[in-house]
Amino acid sequence: MCAMETPLEKALATLVCTFHKYSGKEGDKMTLSKGELKELVKNELGLGEVSEGGIEQLMKSLDRNSDQEIDFKEYSVFLSTLCMAYNDFFRGQSK
Amino acid sequence: MCAMETPLEKALATLVCTFHKYSGKEGDKMTLSKGELKELVKNELGLGEVSEGGIEQLMKSLDRNSDQEIDFKEYSVFLSTLCMAYNDFFRGQSK
Repeated sequence: MCAMETPLEKALATLVCTFHKYSGKEGDKMTLSKGELKELVKNELGLGEVSEGGIEQLMKSLDRNSDQEIDFKEYSVFLSTLCMAYNDFFRGQSK
Repeated sequence: MCAMETPLEKALATLVCTFHKYSGKEGDKMTLSKGELKELVKNELGLGEVSEGGIEQLMKSLDRNSDQEIDFKEYSVFLSTLCMAYNDFFRGQSK
């Protein structure tokens, strides 16, 4: 991952590395369990403590194939959604 | 965009800001024209000069609603795809 040079490439590498920082903790090393997702959201998205119900709901909305794990594709859909929210915020600010 | 603190939040902000750095150059300020996409890919993805045919093809594959412009949603699908490619590379490396 070290050949990433531009800010955009570094950002993409961060998205990948953040996933693996948590997915490797327990169970399948290539997917996020509910507990891993909770830790990621809490530590990496600055939302503070997330309620059990909140994580349940997030998990349900992200887990497209209903296998109780978030794979990298499901995670990337999640981040796209966040990006779009940030983008709407950005558009609002620049008006 | 300044309240972004964690590496993941900063990365998401970079994705949004990179889009706007190019989308604002000509025409619709909220979408990427073919020319803007070409500049973005060339400057921000370290791929060097991209052929006209290559950009045509990329544009065609990203422009889901065929309006000859890449909106933020189409751009985020593109980045997800890149992320998945990086992720596959990462998985390959760690084997």
